[in-house]
Amino acid sequence: MPKSFSFRLIATNAAARTGEIATAHGLVRTPAFMPVGTQGAIKGVHHDDVHAAGADIILANTYHLMLRPGAERVAALGGLHTFMRWPRPILTDSGGFQVMSLSALRKVEEAGVTFRSHLDGAMVELTPERAVAVQILLGSDIAMQLDECVKLPADRNDIERAMQLSLRWAERCKRAFESAALDRALFGIVHGGDDQWLREQSARALTDIGFDGYAIGGLAVGETPEVMRKVVAETAPALPADRPRYLMGVGTPADLLAAVARGIDMFDCVLPTRNGRHGLAFTRFGPINIKNAHHAGDPRPLDAESRCPAARDFSRAYLHHLFKAGEALGGTLLSVVNLFYYQDLMAGARAAIAARRFADYVAETEEQWMAKRDFPPP
Amino acid sequence: MPKSFSFRLIATNAAARTGEIATAHGLVRTPAFMPVGTQGAIKGVHHDDVHAAGADIILANTYHLMLRPGAERVAALGGLHTFMRWPRPILTDSGGFQVMSLSALRKVEEAGVTFRSHLDGAMVELTPERAVAVQILLGSDIAMQLDECVKLPADRNDIERAMQLSLRWAERCKRAFESAALDRALFGIVHGGDDQWLREQSARALTDIGFDGYAIGGLAVGETPEVMRKVVAETAPALPADRPRYLMGVGTPADLLAAVARGIDMFDCVLPTRNGRHGLAFTRFGPINIKNAHHAGDPRPLDAESRCPAARDFSRAYLHHLFKAGEALGGTLLSVVNLFYYQDLMAGARAAIAARRFADYVAETEEQWMAKRDFPPP
Repeated sequence: MPKSFSFRLIATNAAARTGEIATAHGLVRTPAFMPVGTQGAIKGVHHDDVHAAGADIILANTYHLMLRPGAERVAALGGLHTFMRWPRPILTDSGGFQVMSLSALRKVEEAGVTFRSHLDGAMVELTPERAVAVQILLGSDIAMQLDECVKLPADRNDIERAMQLSLRWAERCKRAFESAALDRALFGIVHGGDDQWLREQSARALTDIGFDGYAIGGLAVGETPEVMRKVVAETAPALPADRPRYLMGVGTPADLLAAVARGIDMFDCVLPTRNGRHGLAFTRFGPINIKNAHHAGDPRPLDAESRCPAARDFSRAYLHHLFKAGEALGGTLLSVVNLFYYQDLMAGARAAIAARRFADYVAETEEQWMAKRDFPPP
Repeated sequence: MPKSFSFRLIATNAAARTGEIATAHGLVRTPAFMPVGTQGAIKGVHHDDVHAAGADIILANTYHLMLRPGAERVAALGGLHTFMRWPRPILTDSGGFQVMSLSALRKVEEAGVTFRSHLDGAMVELTPERAVAVQILLGSDIAMQLDECVKLPADRNDIERAMQLSLRWAERCKRAFESAALDRALFGIVHGGDDQWLREQSARALTDIGFDGYAIGGLAVGETPEVMRKVVAETAPALPADRPRYLMGVGTPADLLAAVARGIDMFDCVLPTRNGRHGLAFTRFGPINIKNAHHAGDPRPLDAESRCPAARDFSRAYLHHLFKAGEALGGTLLSVVNLFYYQDLMAGARAAIAARRFADYVAETEEQWMAKRDFPPP
C-alpha cells in the first residue's frame, strides 16, 4: 500500500537539516524533540500541556506497556492513540533498552532476549518478531527494531558482537514488519559504540536492509559529551540523506544543538520532566535550580517573556515554596516549563536552519545561557 | 470604612438557602464548596482547573503558611492572592485546628496555644491576636477566629471549657480585627460538641459579639453522620439568618446535601482531592473506585455527560492504568473530576433552592447514586 509515512527536507545549513515527517496521525516538524510518555503518560503532565508546549510527537516505551497494561489490552482498547487520548504521532521504542536497564535478570541469545519482569517476576521473551508485533498492537506511527544496547565504555569485541546481533535482529524486524503490510514506519538502529569503523559498518548494513528512518543507538549510556558528539559526527554522514535520523535518549539542550549541527533530526529524553520534578528549570538564561534558598523571596517569574504560562505567571518565590512544601504542583509546573523550553529550542533551530543561520543561533543561545543575566536576582 | 463584604439571601426553601457573598475579590455563590489549598496550592491540581471546576473561593491553612513560607514573607510578596496567583476570594482558617491535629506537643492556656512546629521543632505561640495578625498578613477575604477544637466523643466538662475559652478568644479576635480596620470579614466559630444547650449558648454569645459570618466548628472530628446532622440541625437556627453559615471540614456529597437542607451556606473539605489521589472518583452514579480490576478493560469514560473534560475524555481503562502504573497524572485527573463534581453538586443545589425544589433535588441525586446504573460495566 502507499505509505502515509514520508520525510521531506525543507532546508539544510552546513550539516544541519530542517524538514517534515508525514505520518497517518499528522506532521512532525524536524528537528523534533519527543517528550517521553514511558507508561502511556508524560510524567506529571497533562497531554493538553504537552501539545500546548508544541510537541508534534511523543515516545512511548514498549517494555513498560507490554508488561502493563499489556499490548493486547491496549489493542483491544483501540490502540495507544485512543487509549491515552493522544491523537498525534507516536513513536515506540522496541523495549530492548529497558530490558537492559530495568530487568535484573536477562539472557541475550540469537533468538531474542529473555528477561524477568520488574513488576511481577514473570519470565518474558522478547524476540525481534515479538517486538514488532507488540508495536503493531500498540499502533505506533514509528516502530523501532529490537537491538542490544551495550553500556560504554565496553570491550570492542562485545560492542561488535552486539552490533552484529542487532543487525541480524534488524533484518528479522524488517521481515516481520513487511509481512504485516501496515501503513507505518520502521526505523533501524545503528550500533558500534565509540568505534567509527563499526558504526559505519552498521550504518551501511542497515541502509542495505532499508528502513524508513535510522536511529543512532547506544549513546547517552555513560560516555562523555565529547565521545557522543564524535560518534554522531562520524555516523550521521554514513546515513541516507533522504531519511530522518534519530539520536536516541539525548539529551541536554546543549547536546541537542550539537547533534542538530551534525545532521540529527529527532530526539527523545526524560530530562525535561525528570529535572522538572527535581526542581531544575531550563530557561533561556540557563538552568535554574528553584530549590536554592535565594529564590525564596524572588517575586520575578522564571521568564516574563516565555510562551509558557507557568514560566510567566508564577513567581520564583511561589515555585520555590511548592518544592519546599513538597507540593506535586511544583514538579508539574517545572516539567511544563521545561517541555516548552525544549520545544522552543527546536522551533528556533528549525527557523534558523531555514534562514541559513544555524551557527549564529547556537552561538546566541549559548551566550544567553552563559550570561545568566537574569540570575541570581539583582 | 464601608465593607466590600456582604451577604445577600436570594431564596430559601424550607431551611435551605441560596445567596451571594460579596468580597473585595469577587462574589461567592452559596451554598459554596471551598477546595482546600493547604499550603497555598490545591494538592496536585492547577489553579486554572480549580477555577474551571467552578470554585468561587478556596480555603488556605494559616497553620501551614505561617510556618512555611511564613506570613511575613507572603505579605512581602504581595499577599496570598498574588503569591499563589489566585485573584479570587480566599478564606483562611485560624490555625487552631491544625495545631490540635498536627503538632505532637502543644499547650493550651488562656493566652493562646503554644506548640512545637511539625517542620523544624521550633516552639511557636499562637494567640488570638497573632492568629488575626497572620491572617491579615496573608490578606484573606475571610478570616476565622482562633478556637480550641475538641475531638468527639469527649467529656462534657472538657467540651464546655473549650467552648468558653473559644468564646473569650472570639472576643479578642474581634477586637484585634477591628483595630486593624480592614475591608475584610471575620467569622466566629460555634463550639459545644454534641450538646445542644452548649451549642446554643455558644451561638448566642458569638452573635452578641457580632461577626460577619458564623461557622460550626468541632464537627467532622470522629462523630457519626447522625450526630453531625443533629448538631447542624440544632445549631443553624440559633445563628443570625442574615449572615453566612459555614460548616467546617465537611464532607461527603451526602453530608453536604444534608447540611444545606439544614441551612448551611459554606463548606470546605479535602475529600475531593484526597480521595482523587487515592483513586476514588465522585460521580453522578455514586463513588467509583477506579483501582478495581473490572475497570481495566472498560473503554467508557467516568461520565460521558460530565462538564469535566477529564471525566468525559479519558476511559476508565486508562485512568485505571495510570493508578496501577503509579502515574501521578491519575491522581490529578481524579482530583479534577471530584472538584468538578462537588461544584456541580453545589450549583445544582443553588438552582434547586431558587426553584423551591431542593427536597426533590436531594431525592433525585441520592436515587442516582444508589442506582449506580452505569457501574459496573454492562
